[in-house]
Order: sequence, then structure tokens, then C-alpha cells
Amino acid sequence: MYMELAVRMAERSVGLTAPNPPVGVIIVKNGEILSRGWTQIGGSPHAEMHAISQVRNKSLLKGSTMYSTLEPCSHRGKTPPCVDNIIKYKFKDVVISQIDKNPLVNGDGIKKLRNRGIRVTKTNFNNHMNKFNNIFFHSINKNKPHVCLKIASTADGKIATKTKDSKWITGKHSRMMGHYLRSKNDCILVGRGTVEKDNPSLNCRLPGLEHTSPDIFILDTNLSLSLNSKIFKLKNRKISIFHNSSNFNKKKYKKITLIRLNDNPDMLDIRKVIKLISWKGYHRILVEGGSQIGTSLLKNNLIDKIYWFRASKVIGGEGIGAISNLNIRKMNLVKKFKLENSTRVEDDTMDIYTRG
Amino acid sequence: MYMELAVRMAERSVGLTAPNPPVGVIIVKNGEILSRGWTQIGGSPHAEMHAISQVRNKSLLKGSTMYSTLEPCSHRGKTPPCVDNIIKYKFKDVVISQIDKNPLVNGDGIKKLRNRGIRVTKTNFNNHMNKFNNIFFHSINKNKPHVCLKIASTADGKIATKTKDSKWITGKHSRMMGHYLRSKNDCILVGRGTVEKDNPSLNCRLPGLEHTSPDIFILDTNLSLSLNSKIFKLKNRKISIFHNSSNFNKKKYKKITLIRLNDNPDMLDIRKVIKLISWKGYHRILVEGGSQIGTSLLKNNLIDKIYWFRASKVIGGEGIGAISNLNIRKMNLVKKFKLENSTRVEDDTMDIYTRG
Repeated sequence: MYMELAVRMAERSVGLTAPNPPVGVIIVKNGEILSRGWTQIGGSPHAEMHAISQVRNKSLLKGSTMYSTLEPCSHRGKTPPCVDNIIKYKFKDVVISQIDKNPLVNGDGIKKLRNRGIRVTKTNFNNHMNKFNNIFFHSINKNKPHVCLKIASTADGKIATKTKDSKWITGKHSRMMGHYLRSKNDCILVGRGTVEKDNPSLNCRLPGLEHTSPDIFILDTNLSLSLNSKIFKLKNRKISIFHNSSNFNKKKYKKITLIRLNDNPDMLDIRKVIKLISWKGYHRILVEGGSQIGTSLLKNNLIDKIYWFRASKVIGGEGIGAISNLNIRKMNLVKKFKLENSTRVEDDTMDIYTRG
Repeated sequence: MYMELAVRMAERSVGLTAPNPPVGVIIVKNGEILSRGWTQIGGSPHAEMHAISQVRNKSLLKGSTMYSTLEPCSHRGKTPPCVDNIIKYKFKDVVISQIDKNPLVNGDGIKKLRNRGIRVTKTNFNNHMNKFNNIFFHSINKNKPHVCLKIASTADGKIATKTKDSKWITGKHSRMMGHYLRSKNDCILVGRGTVEKDNPSLNCRLPGLEHTSPDIFILDTNLSLSLNSKIFKLKNRKISIFHNSSNFNKKKYKKITLIRLNDNPDMLDIRKVIKLISWKGYHRILVEGGSQIGTSLLKNNLIDKIYWFRASKVIGGEGIGAISNLNIRKMNLVKKFKLENSTRVEDDTMDIYTRG
């Protein structure tokens, strides 16, 4: 039960903790919960320290048990190693859900605790939490971050009319769910076309979650995007542009991180883009808009999840499709997914597909 | 409660009773159910007579109450008027859900019963049943039958690859639901292309429901369809072809009803087709296959319901879309529907849309 609560704590911080993973902690003594914590925005303090910090009388911690969804860290990053504090405050037991496969930890935290007489137990009971942790492990160990594609289409799979009118396809509540997705991902990736056409803010506008808007990555091969777009006027948002241009005015871009990819002059290699985003410490990427980006990701089998919002409307054949040409000729070659969930959202449906 | 049961009886016969409506009947005496009945296949016996026929000792009927989802008929069609039998067997009460708006009845049944001292009550409690009855009223009074479009597509709205491969888009259980739809409609309408490409049987292959396969209407402007298609070799199936050809061998088509429409030489007028089908006594039309038929119906606002089965697969832009060109330029002109229901069927979804 305590681990279940710890998982709930971890869930609070999903999408907000990059470059660190979301972790949840519950501290228990004599059957009573002393404190709870979760990884804070930007990754620190860690969940362990967040939970400990909330106990005013630190002497109470002596002899208590810590439930954590991940092995406590043993290395010094932005913060001192958590195991040092667990030892310092004389915890008796530590129960973890999974070993931290980050090569900097990977069992070392457990070893250090055990060396100091603290009992460490592993209860691998929660698959859901393992999924969270595995996203982190995949990203840091294999540079394979979790890529989530969001699509808002009509029933017949169109994202705009032939004149590119798309306001609005889906209803208010679907769009709010879209904002929630922005909150639950570390960063957002869009194409130049989407910024040009929709002039979006790409922020989370849900009341109380405004501070959880993700960092932004834009694909703009020739750096042709106007800096007058709304997106470049937002405060407190980190923006990076992937491009392939040698000829530009650096001064103009001083607040923006430019990342030049020197391969194909006409098109950015989406595999490199995703790897670099992961390498920069982002583990959950939300891809919004631009059927071209979605299509390239699909071609390269890089999509882990699709949130597909569908309005009860029909645009017809000439509309712009959610996915562009994949050159699939036979049914045995189609891209297959698993249907994780299917929900009704007002007059729309929200179907969640995962890697098939 | 008895009327609720009568509605259940009526539901059994939906799609099987053309040219008559599906009706359900419960006969009650002293708080006990004496019998139940529903309209039989092809429309006769009527539900009233079906229920009465199941009571061996007819003297038991004296003083009993009949619950019927529709006003009993007062005219002689294939069968004698039901009110005559209600009078003959000395029913005391008749409770109906709705007056039969068929101009041949329209309150006349009630009048005849009341004239003979039988109490008639109208309990308009069941909206669901009214929907059933209204489909019948619309069809016979306005020649507006209920048109249900079935679509089986990928998540991105494609019904085949660019090479027209489509086996199979959706899973086994979705296809079984498709067979159930065939059972629940009076007739099925397809285009020449579908018959040519898929060579389908268009029957209901659900165990125990094989006898409920609907009659078939095909659109074949130039009568170019080969009579070697599987469909023409089926036994006990009525097949009609709408065409616009003056030059054909009548002998070849002796088992088939040919209906010539003399308007546009290149295309059949879908509005006329639907009216004629209704005029022939079919009130529920299932449209399967051929994105062209679906598109023409959509353009003419003739679709009452869409069953949209969606597989968790993606074919991409060059695939064949479920709906063809509608020439819609702006979002305020898109075709809008209501989402009646959204269900998961294995790894597919089944979304039911109704007239918006």
C-alpha cells in the first residue's frame, strides 16, 4: 500500500523532472506516514530529499522506513547523494520498486545502504511504475526517449480542409486534454509549418498548471521561420531550433539554442533529432502538428504512443490527412499499434495507441 | 414493465420485417404473462397474431390485456386486421406505445377497439421504441428510409492500400459485428466496385442468424458487372440492380430485378435510389463499401447513422480514403454528426455516429 502511494507521488511529477526521472517517496514509522515527497520541477530536490525536508523534527526519522519507486542515488549531481542523507538520518529500512539502471547508480545505492546496516528490500509489484522508470532507462542508456504523437483529426482522419482551415476540429475538452499532455511531457517538438500556420503558444493553459509548460524544439531546416511568431515572445520558455543553414545572423537568435545538423541539405534526419533531444536530458517528447513530422517518425518506427483525438465530423478526400505518404502497398506492411485505451471526450473520441 | 418486455420482443425482429415495422406484444391476465409475440420474418404474422397463436386455449384470452409497441392494425393486408382478432378473443384492455402513423391505420385501430368496449391506453414512455417506429413512419410517409453506413478503416481513415489491398483492415470481432448489422437491416446497398473487387456474399454468417441475411441492391450504371460474381450464385437472396443501360440481354438477368433510372447517363441519382428502395417497402438500408456511395450519400445529407470500425493500424496518405472528395473548404461547412456511442472491439474501436 505504501508503495502504491509512492507511485501516486511519482505520477505528480511526470513530465516535469527532466533530466531526472519522476520518483515518489513515502516515509513510514510505526505504521504511520511521516512524510511524502516527489521529484521537484527540473529534477531537484530529489523525491527522497523532498520527503525528508518536510519532517521538521529530523530525529523522528530514526528507525523509519522509506518507500521509494526507484533506488536512491549514490552519486553527486546537482544535489548530494540521497543515500548519504538516508544514512545520516538513521533510516532502518528502505523499500524500492526498481534498481536504478542509470550506470551512475545501478545497485550502488543499495550496496552503500546495506554496508551501513540499512535493510533494503525490492518489491517489484508495480508494472505501471516500471513503465515510468523504463522510459528513463531507455532514454539515458540507449538514447531512445519516449515519443508521443498527438493528433486531432476528423472521423475520416483529416487535420484541416484543403484550404488549411483547422479551427477547430476537436472540441474544448479534447483541447484541454491536449494541454494536459503538454504538462506531462518534458518537451514538445513541432515543425516550422505548424508554427507558421497556427502561430501557437504551445503552453499548458490549464489553471494551476501554467508553470508546467514544456520546453520547445522546432524543426526549421533553412531557419526561415519569422521571429515575430508568438512562440518567440513567450517568457521563461526554453526554445531550440534544429536547422541546417550556414548563413544566418547569430545576433537575432541570442535567446534561442540553435542546433545545426549537417547531413541532408533538404531534410533534417528525424532519428538524429530524437537522439539529440534525449541526449540533452529530455525523456518524454510530445510531438504536435505537422503531418510531416508524424510521418517521418512513423516511417522510422520511432513512435511509442499516439493520442488520437477524433471529432464527429467529416471533411472528405481533399482534406489534409493526419499522416502523409508511407508508400505502403500491402496490408501485411501497415504500421500496427496496440489500442491501450479508448475514451469518449464530449462529442470526440480519444484513442490511445501504443507500440504494436 | 410489460411494455418494456414488449419492446424487447420488437427488438428481436428489427431488420427482418420489411415491408412491415418491427412490433412486440405481451399478453397479460391477472398479473401473469400468458404469451408474447413479435413480427415474424417478412412482416407476417403480425406480433399480435404471433402472440395470440401461442395460447392454445383461446378462452383464456377473455378479459386479458394486450401490451403492444404499436397500435394494432385495422386494415387488411397480407393478413386480416389484428383488431378483429382482439375483439373476437374478448380482450379487456389494450395498451399501446404509439399510434401507427401509417395512413391506413392512424388511430383507426384504436377507434374500432373502443367502439367495441375495449379500453385502449397510450403510454408513450419508451423513446427507444419511438425511434424504431419513427423509422417506419418516415419511410412510408416521406420515403425517407433509415440509411446506415458501415465503414471499416485504419486509424488514419483508409479503407485500402493504394494497390487496393484491404484484407483485413479490422479484426474478427468487428467483422462479426458487421454481420450482425446485416441481420438488423432490411436490405444492403453496395456499388459495382465493391462486388467486383471483394466478390462478397453480403450475408449474415453468424451461427443461428444465417436466415436473416438482407436483400441486396447494387448500383451498376452500365450493367457491366459479371454475373459470375459469388453474389449472383447465392440461393434465396433477392437481388436488384439499379442501372442506366438500354442495351442488355434480358434473359441473362431473369433472376434479378433490374431498375432503370433514366437521368444522368454517367451516374445514378442516389436520392432516387434511396427513395425507390423505400417505396419498395424497405425501411432500413445498410450501405457497405464503395467510398463513392458513402460520399454521394453524405453530400446529399442522406446518412442517418454511421458504424465506423477503426483498426489500430496506419496505412498513410496514398491509401484509399473512407470518404472521397466533398469539396469542403471551411471548417464551418464540414459534415457534423453526433457521437452516439464509442466502444472497443478487440484492438479496434466501433464509433457510432448519428445525424448531427
